[in-house]
Amino acid sequence: MQVYISVVGVGTEREDLNRLAYEVGRLIAERGAVLVCGGLGGIMDAAAHGAKEAGGMTIGILPGPSRVGSSKHLDVAIPTDMGHARNALVIRAADAAIAIGAGYGTLSEIGLALKMGKPVIGLKTWVLYREGKEDEGIILVDTAVEAVEAIFRIIQQREGDL
Amino acid sequence: MQVYISVVGVGTEREDLNRLAYEVGRLIAERGAVLVCGGLGGIMDAAAHGAKEAGGMTIGILPGPSRVGSSKHLDVAIPTDMGHARNALVIRAADAAIAIGAGYGTLSEIGLALKMGKPVIGLKTWVLYREGKEDEGIILVDTAVEAVEAIFRIIQQREGDL
Amino acid sequence: MQVYISVVGVGTEREDLNRLAYEVGRLIAERGAVLVCGGLGGIMDAAAHGAKEAGGMTIGILPGPSRVGSSKHLDVAIPTDMGHARNALVIRAADAAIAIGAGYGTLSEIGLALKMGKPVIGLKTWVLYREGKEDEGIILVDTAVEAVEAIFRIIQQREGDL
Amino acid sequence: MQVYISVVGVGTEREDLNRLAYEVGRLIAERGAVLVCGGLGGIMDAAAHGAKEAGGMTIGILPGPSRVGSSKHLDVAIPTDMGHARNALVIRAADAAIAIGAGYGTLSEIGLALKMGKPVIGLKTWVLYREGKEDEGIILVDTAVEAVEAIFRIIQQREGDL
Repeated sequence: MQVYISVVGVGTEREDLNRLAYEVGRLIAERGAVLVCGGLGGIMDAAAHGAKEAGGMTIGILPGPSRVGSSKHLDVAIPTDMGHARNALVIRAADAAIAIGAGYGTLSEIGLALKMGKPVIGLKTWVLYREGKEDEGIILVDTAVEAVEAIFRIIQQREGDL
Repeated sequence: MQVYISVVGVGTEREDLNRLAYEVGRLIAERGAVLVCGGLGGIMDAAAHGAKEAGGMTIGILPGPSRVGSSKHLDVAIPTDMGHARNALVIRAADAAIAIGAGYGTLSEIGLALKMGKPVIGLKTWVLYREGKEDEGIILVDTAVEAVEAIFRIIQQREGDL
Repeated sequence: MQVYISVVGVGTEREDLNRLAYEVGRLIAERGAVLVCGGLGGIMDAAAHGAKEAGGMTIGILPGPSRVGSSKHLDVAIPTDMGHARNALVIRAADAAIAIGAGYGTLSEIGLALKMGKPVIGLKTWVLYREGKEDEGIILVDTAVEAVEAIFRIIQQREGDL
Repeated sequence: MQVYISVVGVGTEREDLNRLAYEVGRLIAERGAVLVCGGLGGIMDAAAHGAKEAGGMTIGILPGPSRVGSSKHLDVAIPTDMGHARNALVIRAADAAIAIGAGYGTLSEIGLALKMGKPVIGLKTWVLYREGKEDEGIILVDTAVEAVEAIFRIIQQREGDL
C-alpha cells in the first residue's frame, strides 16, 4: 500500500525552514510517497513545491471553505471549512508526520499524531518535557535526509512487525 | 482553475446504478475534471473506476480511520474518522455534485450541496416536494451524458457571471 | 438515561413555523427531554424559547467560531467553527429529530438522521419520493402534540425492544 | 456573557492529578463558569465531579458516537463520532483552557488553544521549548486555586481591553 506522509509547519515564511521543507518534500516524492500538508503557505507550500519538482503527488487539506489561495504546488486541494479542526484531518490522512519549526498549530498536530500512535519526526521543532524529563515521542533529527530516512525505517519496521 | 465534481450515491451494489456511475465517472475524467467521492463501494467505487479508465484523477474521502477497505480506483484516499460528518467534506471539496440513486446518505449530501449553493444533478435519485410543489433544486436528468453536460454548462455559466 | 431531541429547521423567521417550533420545544421540555438545535434564529430560537419557558434544558450547536449571535434561549451554546458540517453534530447529539419546515439544511439533517437510524418526525417539512413511491422514512404529522407523542412512542418502543 | 472553561487532561486514572482536577472543577463552578471537558474518565470525570459538587454546569464533548460510557457528572453529553478531531471542539467551545497532566491528547489541545489565541493555564503539564528557550504560551502554576485565579484575571483583562 502506498505511503502517505504529512509535513506540518507554520504558514509564515522563514527561509531556513522553507529550505528544509522543500528538501523534505523532494525526498518524500523520490521515495514514492504521497505528501499531505495543510495546503497554505510557508512550510506547507515549500514541502509541496519540493515534492512536485521530484514528480510526487501532493495533497493539501485546507481550513477554509474554498480552494482559493491554496499553494500552487498541490495536485489535490481539499477545502474543509473546519478551521483548526482540519489539523486532525491532516494527521489522520497520513501514516507518519514530519514537523518542521515550532508553531502552535504544529504543536497540535504533533500531539494528535502521537495520540493516534503515528511516528513523528521533528526538524527544528518543539522539545517537550514532562515530569522533568525530555519526552521521546518526537524523533528529533537535524537534516531533511535524516528525517525521511527515519520515517521510512520506522514504517518498514512496523510493517515487518505485522 | 480545475473543476472538482462529487459523485454521491449508495455504497451497496446495484448493477443499473453502478453502470450509470461508471459512465458518469468516465465522462467527468474525459472533461478533465477531478472526481471526488466517499471512497467506498457501490456508486463511489463505480464512478472512480470509470474516471480511472478514462485517465482521470480520483479522490475518496472516507468515513473511517484508515485507508483499508477503500475503493481500488482511487488516486488519493483520505480517511477522516468523522463518520457521517464526512459527507459535508465530500460536498465541500467539489464545485458541484451528481447524485445517483436514492439512499439516505445521498439525501444528506444533496441537502448539504444545495445549502452551500452548489449545483446538484440527479440521476434516478430523490424527488423532493415542499408545500405541495416539486422542488427544483436538483436538476433531474436521465442519462450520464446529460448529467455531465448539465454540470459543465452550469459551471461555465457561473464563471461567465463573475 | 435522559432523552435528547433535536429540533431542526430554517434560521429565517416564519411566524407559522416558529409557533409550531415553540410548541414543540415546550412539549419536549415538559416530557423532561433535553432540546438540541443549531443555536441560531428561526426554528432553532423558537424551539429553544418554548423549551426554556417550560423549564427545560436547551443546547445549541453553532456553525461559527464563537457564541456571539446565538439564540438567547440556550443553556449551553457550543460554537464548532465547522460550518454546515455541524449539521451532523446536531443530529449525532440526539436520540431523535423533529424537522419543521423545508429548508435545504433541514433536508441534510433529515438525511443524516435517517442514515444514522434515528427516528425523524416531520412537521410541514419535505415529502420525499424515490422510484415513484413516497418514502416513509420521515413520520409526517400535523401538530406539535402529535410530533412529540410520536417521538416518545418510538423511543419507548426501541427501549422495549432492547 | 457567561464564561466557559475547558479542563483537559488524560483519561487514565492518576490519583494526584484527579484530585487537582476535582479541585479545579469545584473552583470553576464556584466562580459561576461552565465546565467543558472531553466527557470521559480521569481528569475529565474528576473535573466534572468537582464542578457538579459545587452546583456548576458541566458539558462533555465525546469522541464516540453515543453517550454510553461517558462521565456520570455531566449535565450535557455530546457525542461527536469525530474521534480525536473532537479535541478541537473541546477547545473551540471554551474561552480558556486548564491543562492538567501531560498526555499527548492534552498536548494537542494546548496547541489548538494557543493557536486560537485562548489562554492556557498548566498544572503538572508539558513544558515546551523552542529554539533553546522555554515557551511562555502556557501559564504554569502549582495549585488549583492559582490556576482558576489566573484564568479569571486574564479573561477580565481581555474584557477590559475591548
